[in-house]
Formats: sequence, structure tokens, C-alpha cells
Amino acid sequence: MNPVDTPSISDNDLGTLAILWHGDHLALLDQRLLPEQEVWLTYSDPRIVADAIRDMVVRGAPAIGISAAYGVVLAAKGAVQSPDWKQSIVDAIDVLAASRPTAVNLFWALDRMRSRLQSCASCADAIAGLTGEAEAIHAEDVAANRLMGRHALDIMGEGKFAVLTHCNTGALATGGYGTALGVVRSLWRAGRLTHVYADETRPWLQGSRLTAWELQQEGIPVILNADSAAAQILRQGEVRWVIVGADRITANGDVANKIGTYSLSILARHHNVKFMVVAPSSTVDMALASGEAIPIEERDGTEVRSVRGVAIAPEHVEVFNPVFDVTPASLIDAIVTEKGVIEQPTADKMKQVFG
Amino acid sequence: MNPVDTPSISDNDLGTLAILWHGDHLALLDQRLLPEQEVWLTYSDPRIVADAIRDMVVRGAPAIGISAAYGVVLAAKGAVQSPDWKQSIVDAIDVLAASRPTAVNLFWALDRMRSRLQSCASCADAIAGLTGEAEAIHAEDVAANRLMGRHALDIMGEGKFAVLTHCNTGALATGGYGTALGVVRSLWRAGRLTHVYADETRPWLQGSRLTAWELQQEGIPVILNADSAAAQILRQGEVRWVIVGADRITANGDVANKIGTYSLSILARHHNVKFMVVAPSSTVDMALASGEAIPIEERDGTEVRSVRGVAIAPEHVEVFNPVFDVTPASLIDAIVTEKGVIEQPTADKMKQVFG
Repeated sequence: MNPVDTPSISDNDLGTLAILWHGDHLALLDQRLLPEQEVWLTYSDPRIVADAIRDMVVRGAPAIGISAAYGVVLAAKGAVQSPDWKQSIVDAIDVLAASRPTAVNLFWALDRMRSRLQSCASCADAIAGLTGEAEAIHAEDVAANRLMGRHALDIMGEGKFAVLTHCNTGALATGGYGTALGVVRSLWRAGRLTHVYADETRPWLQGSRLTAWELQQEGIPVILNADSAAAQILRQGEVRWVIVGADRITANGDVANKIGTYSLSILARHHNVKFMVVAPSSTVDMALASGEAIPIEERDGTEVRSVRGVAIAPEHVEVFNPVFDVTPASLIDAIVTEKGVIEQPTADKMKQVFG
Repeated sequence: MNPVDTPSISDNDLGTLAILWHGDHLALLDQRLLPEQEVWLTYSDPRIVADAIRDMVVRGAPAIGISAAYGVVLAAKGAVQSPDWKQSIVDAIDVLAASRPTAVNLFWALDRMRSRLQSCASCADAIAGLTGEAEAIHAEDVAANRLMGRHALDIMGEGKFAVLTHCNTGALATGGYGTALGVVRSLWRAGRLTHVYADETRPWLQGSRLTAWELQQEGIPVILNADSAAAQILRQGEVRWVIVGADRITANGDVANKIGTYSLSILARHHNVKFMVVAPSSTVDMALASGEAIPIEERDGTEVRSVRGVAIAPEHVEVFNPVFDVTPASLIDAIVTEKGVIEQPTADKMKQVFG
């Protein structure tokens, strides 16, 4: 990977894109450096793409899936001289699949790429077929996001109101437009949004570094808050919906998402604020009966002990740093996917849509 | 104020003290620089003490009250040549009272100093009388903390368990020993504590910078967590009590405390974890009927937009930065003061103890 001078492509409709496919290489906007620096890194080796996913150059469940899919295309391009080209691509898929454990979109995208690979008779055939598949995954994600924005508006009630969101679920976290933040875009364009509260989202600060930046770039009114101020905000009564994304949704409607989501679901219920999860159907994992079976990634304590390299705690203090938590279906008012909206989710309702 | 080479006095019993009275000047451990640097600042001007309170060199409701009381002594010493010595001391009290709005211990301590001043016939008399009063306020705080630790243990149930705390309520926040963290000390010494979860407490990071450091110095097992991970921790079942301090307690048992406390009270109730507030009776403000009347300080958004001078958000993004929130009495299982324990607080029960 090399830093390159690729400007960020800001599209009034899709938001600031963070994944650009250039045919012979993949470019990722380094999300570790935002909002101060907009640095693009380029990739032509699938193993380095896996590192980029692990190291959070790219993050957000849909964006991880799309990046991994392009990583498989890079594997095919790199295998063109190899007699074992198919095995070489399969090996790269395995490496990409091991990059992060919680978001199911990663495995879903790689499964699609693996299936597409099966039918390829030559490496040239694979390059063409896998490129098409990756571009389709990318385009379908954007289309799903737009559709989810429309579905969500139908159930959010009349009038103009504020929302609160957690983490970053915008253009930066997806192929473009966003999931939960896509709904925010749709609300804003429909003239239905007063303002957005953005949880800063410790420890990685996706809210302050990414969401606040993304919304500011489009002139959508955003107010940043410490995560622990969310209860006070919900008590004040302006917020009608808490809107979040998802990293995995199980067959009963339980949702794994950024640490702090579960907390918000309890606080929303306590204050009679509605709680919405917005995610493409690729996030749904019908193979898992409930959220208890989701592997939850724990990352290094350094993320809590320091901020951008600056120490904020004693050097060797023990840290509990789960990246995700699981929100039970019973605390969710609506799961919005491109296939439709599931209100008050249950296993039966999930089965009707995804079964 | 000047940095001086005064070592931090670590006492096995009281914890690391942060306020030292040297007769002719006050020394404060600069809590903005912990845990990396232990810098003591010295004060001989009450107006600079007021600045130190506003700028959070010293913080924690009881510590603010004690520091302000010593500030009044400094005013008396500075007025010794003045014919208007009494007015000069009263003016200094007014300046100290304007330093921060929420913690009532500040006003309570200054009221005691003001009353003591009334009976003084000369400035020399005032110096002696006010010194005695400030030292009494300091000593009574430590005694109250020890007593609260004993009272708390009586109602916490049998066996050994974990607790979760928020902000810093230890020796650093008081005259020594601590309020909520004093209870933690008492539990630990009684062999009843497995470990403490410390919320990092954004935006000022009292948990990671101060509580983790204070507990580590004494070998009390502490695990640091992002504030938004508290719900996940409470769900895991090890934590029997959430223990917090208070900046003001009203006549009906409502409690103003560090932002995030209200959130924890909701999360504790949801998980059937008990919720305890520990504060000296100087924190009780029977003049206010309920928490709605408490003035809540909002501090500059810079505290959220940056950490220790490092930007973590877009420069001009709007921020909601309330420093405190109000927890309703209905979500509190016990208020522990040196005058006794009020379980399931109500106005009637509060009146019986403080009326």
C-alpha cells in the first residue's frame, strides 16, 4: 500500500466515498486519520487488504465486505501466472475471512466470491467474473442503502424531529449513502430532520471523527456528545428515534453492533424513544439462532488507555475492551433492511422475510 | 501558583492526598496532568484558588469545598494590613463561590467560613478562627468518609463481589479516603471485593486518569472500560453494586453527579444491580425540593472535540457538553452519608435524617 494523492470524491447524493476500485488496484480512504488528514492508500495484494481490514483503515460491516470482495479480485489478478491459480485465490479468501470475526457481511461477500469462482474455467475467466461479482456487491449495497432510507421514512411518524446515532454508519462505512446514516440523509432531504446527535463512540471515536465530519461536509446539523450524555439527551424529549447500524443480525432479531448499542437500546426504552436498526440483508445470519452465539471481538486495551497515541490512563492498567455488544430483539422497535421492515422483531417475523 | 517539588503523600489508609495545607500556602496536586505527571501547585492568593477550582486543578465536590475553605484563610492572611479586612475576606468568598455552580459542598464550606468570620473582632482573630474552621472542614470530611465506608458495608450483602464506579470519588476528590471510592477501599480491606470496573468517564477522563491510577497505587484490582461498555459489564453478572458520588442531593433524594450517572442508574435497574450514592451530608441541599432546580454546568465543547490537546473531531462541530446530570431518587437504592443510610430515598426519609 502506498499513500496516493487521490482526492476524496464527495457526491451530493452518496456522501463521501471511502472505497474506490480502479480496475488494477483498490484505493481506501484511511479512516484512522480522519478528520484531520484525508489520505488514500492503494492496494494490489489481497493479504495487505486483510491487514487494512484488521487495522481499521476501512471499517463498517458493509464496507468491510465490499473491500474484501475487491481483495479477491486482486488475488485473481495476482494468480494469473500460477498453475494453481484457483487454490491461490481460495487461500486469499481464507486470509481475508480471518481479518475480523464479528461482521457477517465479510463472510457473506466472500461466500459470493467463492461461489462465483467455482464456475470459472481459467484465471482470465476468474478475473472477469470476480470483478463483476465485486462490483455487483458494491452497487447492490448502495442500492440497498437508498431503499432502506425510503422504507425507514414510512414508519418514523409525521413531523420534524431529532435523532441520535452511534458509531459511523454513513458513506464511509458502506459502499455509499450509508445504513443508519443513510436514513438520516433521507430524513434530511425530506425536510423531516431538525438535527442529529452523534455519540462520540469511544474507544475508536467513529462518531466524533467520522460521523460528525461526514454530516458536516453535507451541511446536516450535527451535535456531538460524550456517549454517557445520551441518557440526558433522550430525557430532553427532542429525539424521536435512536438509529444504529448492525454487524450481524441473528434469526431471532438480536443485533450485534458497536459497543454502546445495547446501552442505548435500554436508555431508549426507558425514555419511550423508538429504537431502529438499519442494515442490508447481507448482515442477517439466519444460521445463528440468537445473539448469544455471535463471536464478539475484543481489541487491545491500548485503544482505551490512549487516544491517538496520547496516554490517558496508567500504562499497565487492565482494560475490558469489547468492540461489539448484542442488543436483544425485545428492545428493538424496527429492523430496516432493503427487503422490508420488521417491526418488533421475532424469530417468526424474521423467517417470513429471510427464511 | 508555582510548580513545586512536593511529593505526593501516599498514605496506606487515606489514599493519595491532593490537598495539603502548609500554614502560609495551599498546595494542590494538579489533577489535569495525572497520571503522567505529579505536579504540585502552590497558592497564596484566594482568587487564584478560585481559578484552580474553575480550571479543575482540583475537582470533586468535597475537595472543592475544602480548597475553597483554605482559600478563605489565604484571603484573611492577605488582608492583615487592610483597614477593610473583613470586606476583603467577604469579597474573596464571593469570588470563590462563583468558581463552579453545581457542587453544593462549595457553598456549604464557604457558608461555614462566612459564619465563622462574623464573630471575629480582628484580622488576626479571623486568621486563627478561619484556619481552625478550614482544618475542621477538612478533618470532618475524612472522618465522614471513613464512617460512610462502614455504613455502606452493612447494607451491601454477604460474600465477595465486583463493583462498578464512575468518575473519581477517591482521595483525590475529597480530603482523603474518598466517598464512593472510600466504600471501595472499605470493601477491599474487609476482603469483600473481587475487582472494580472503572468507567473512563468522558470527557474529562476522571476514571482512566484518576480512579485507575489511585486504585493501582494501592493494589486494588481495577479494570478500565469505555463508558458505553458499562451495560455489557452489568449484564455479565459479576457486579453487585454500582457506586457513585454526588455533587448535590436535593430534599427528595434526587442526585446531581457527573454526566453518565443517570445513564448508569437506568442500566443498573434494568440488570437488577443495586445503585448506591455515597456523599457527606455537606452534599445535601434541603433548600431544593428536587433535582430539576439544580443548576447544571455546561463546559466548553473543546473537552469533547479534543483529548489532552489532540483534536478528535472537526474543529467547529457543535457539542453538547453537560458536566452533570440528575438521577431521580426512584432509581437509587441507597444514599449513604456519615449521618446514616437512606434506602429507597424519599422526601420523608430525607427529612428524618437531614430535616
